[in-house]
Amino acid sequence: MTKQLQIALFGCGNVGQGVFDSIQKKQLGINIVNVLVKDIHKKRTVPSNLLTTNAEQIFNNKDIEVIVELMGGIEPAYTYIKLALKNKKNVVTANKALLALHGEELQALAEQQGVQLKFEASVAASIPIIKVLQESFVANQIEEITGILNGTSNYILTKMHLGLSYNLALKQAQKLGFAEANPSLDVSGNDASQKLAILCHLVFGKSSGITEGIEKIDIPDIQYALEFGYIIKLLASAKREKDKLMVSTFPTLVPKEHILAKVDNEMNAIMVKGDLIGEQVFYGRGAGSLPTASAVISDILDLESHRIRLKPNSLKEKEVHSRWYVRTIVNDKPGVLAGIAKIFAEKGISILSVNQREDRFDGKVYLIFLLHEIDITTVEKALQEVENLDFVHEKPLLLKVEQKT
Amino acid sequence: MTKQLQIALFGCGNVGQGVFDSIQKKQLGINIVNVLVKDIHKKRTVPSNLLTTNAEQIFNNKDIEVIVELMGGIEPAYTYIKLALKNKKNVVTANKALLALHGEELQALAEQQGVQLKFEASVAASIPIIKVLQESFVANQIEEITGILNGTSNYILTKMHLGLSYNLALKQAQKLGFAEANPSLDVSGNDASQKLAILCHLVFGKSSGITEGIEKIDIPDIQYALEFGYIIKLLASAKREKDKLMVSTFPTLVPKEHILAKVDNEMNAIMVKGDLIGEQVFYGRGAGSLPTASAVISDILDLESHRIRLKPNSLKEKEVHSRWYVRTIVNDKPGVLAGIAKIFAEKGISILSVNQREDRFDGKVYLIFLLHEIDITTVEKALQEVENLDFVHEKPLLLKVEQKT
Repeated sequence: MTKQLQIALFGCGNVGQGVFDSIQKKQLGINIVNVLVKDIHKKRTVPSNLLTTNAEQIFNNKDIEVIVELMGGIEPAYTYIKLALKNKKNVVTANKALLALHGEELQALAEQQGVQLKFEASVAASIPIIKVLQESFVANQIEEITGILNGTSNYILTKMHLGLSYNLALKQAQKLGFAEANPSLDVSGNDASQKLAILCHLVFGKSSGITEGIEKIDIPDIQYALEFGYIIKLLASAKREKDKLMVSTFPTLVPKEHILAKVDNEMNAIMVKGDLIGEQVFYGRGAGSLPTASAVISDILDLESHRIRLKPNSLKEKEVHSRWYVRTIVNDKPGVLAGIAKIFAEKGISILSVNQREDRFDGKVYLIFLLHEIDITTVEKALQEVENLDFVHEKPLLLKVEQKT
Repeated sequence: MTKQLQIALFGCGNVGQGVFDSIQKKQLGINIVNVLVKDIHKKRTVPSNLLTTNAEQIFNNKDIEVIVELMGGIEPAYTYIKLALKNKKNVVTANKALLALHGEELQALAEQQGVQLKFEASVAASIPIIKVLQESFVANQIEEITGILNGTSNYILTKMHLGLSYNLALKQAQKLGFAEANPSLDVSGNDASQKLAILCHLVFGKSSGITEGIEKIDIPDIQYALEFGYIIKLLASAKREKDKLMVSTFPTLVPKEHILAKVDNEMNAIMVKGDLIGEQVFYGRGAGSLPTASAVISDILDLESHRIRLKPNSLKEKEVHSRWYVRTIVNDKPGVLAGIAKIFAEKGISILSVNQREDRFDGKVYLIFLLHEIDITTVEKALQEVENLDFVHEKPLLLKVEQKT
């Protein structure tokens, strides 16, 4: 057993709670020594003996190697992170506003102090875009980073493409918890722009760029865009042109066929273009307590002093069960459907859907079945019997069917 | 300047050449000492003094820290990799067939010898699925890995959805270089199944699973599936059910709305479900000399002895230029279009498309312009003049337009 890594959480809101719970639930070799909060008396699931309002005491605790900053906002997070780095503690943060503003300074301070500042969760939560850019694409010249980086805006725009007005779509987003009571940081483009600034800083150097929100888009704009062959998305984009960079966060007409046009609802996606990789896209949840916790914990477990990799399970294999598509080619005569249906019934296989069309060739027809969930052995045995029926031509074709959600 | 990392390439086919060229072109701190080939006299761009047929000499060279195996196939790659590991050299390989068969043994040997065996390029080329599973999702219980892992099959199926027969689609794939002269490894599902086995081994332990190819699918199957609301894709899938695992590579009806149904042509995509992350999808090129080189080089630069991260450029920012969507609300009277078009013309802005419909409200109409590529300052200046026209209501709305390809 390796030594447990001692850490402290700063902040215990929605994300802090998710990180705390996930670390407690899983055996990851991480021990949470303290949780810094503003109000020690607020009701929480965190044991009260871990809670403290005394940051100084955490900085002075030599055992604590990592500060996980999940307070958000500029102050006091900015001051605390600087103090943590100066006390030679590694820092993991999800704070995009702070990094967009002071990332360069904090990174320099971390290097000077010989500790690490990690921030995977600050852009698109659990989508591992920071690691991938820094490590997986290290051999590439990155030509472009373009993303749907704000779930609230993407949810609103998706619903507007279904005919909802901006205000109705926003209300729905608020009801579902995708949008804040004050949504201005999201719909103004500023949230996406902060995330883009963090990615640009990693790859292209410091950038500012232009930012425009989605507030002025109206239903007719959506309709005109569709007629021209486009979907409107809020794209945060940095494009390289020779040695210069164009940076913008702007509502954009995206050609319908483009993969980013197909990213709907609250989902995020980031496209990266490089000279070797071509285009790659990363798609997933860009917010939420658990996805953010996933990224925060992966940063903790990626610290040089304590690097931990996924350990494989040793799962036993189980026979494949699924819904199934069965295509038979049969003579067009009475009793055919009944004959096949009887075989399925005898094996306990339920039919979900049947399709036989008028078209026939040489007196033969296609007879298609969609079957309810069942194991492959049972369905294959049934198909052997079906194949032996004298009105059945060829071995039936069996395909899997993924259930609709 | 850190010491250069000394490596040898085994194999110099399409991928080997891509790796060689990329390393030579970019300053990555990697020095290729030797390239092992079968035929030293074959015409290549690799300088002849680097070429050798003598593997022994490479194993005995103490300076060489990394063997990059790009020969493919089981033998002699299997023997060479074992010898390399026994000689305490790190090994980077793209050899999926070998890893699917002997991955466990080779991994154990590497650990025993205290060196690393890395194989990012073996699954979906430059899509960094191995790193992401092992490092970024380390805190997750992985519930499912489902991917479109064979570009040839996906290309053929995509074209069949456009009405081409299987044989015609295959021929087109061969013409474009996506399919081999003998396509059986691809269309039988075995190639995808090997890649799935590698991912399963990392996450769930050893697995076998069932494999079915796409050869028997016919145009009517595509049509029936579409009528039922599905797209047919070859999915390689491992799903956890409690502590058991279902593993299959099978042509599957995927609900039309699902993100994997939208992955077309030769592209690959891998969906990962985890308890914290929810669903994530990675999309990109799963084959090709340069994408594979990207993954191979990232593995080399990720070796513990020589870890290198992306260094940011310092690009100057450039004003944003783009195509633009302009929406004006104007009085419905003669001369309106001429008035606005004149302003655009004076600023050198070309109009790509105009749309004005019959619908009007309170005597007002929407007048929409798509503009050719131009910088934002010019278009904003023009819009200020447009706004000042007496028949124009409201500030015109400006959106970006991504060019169709």
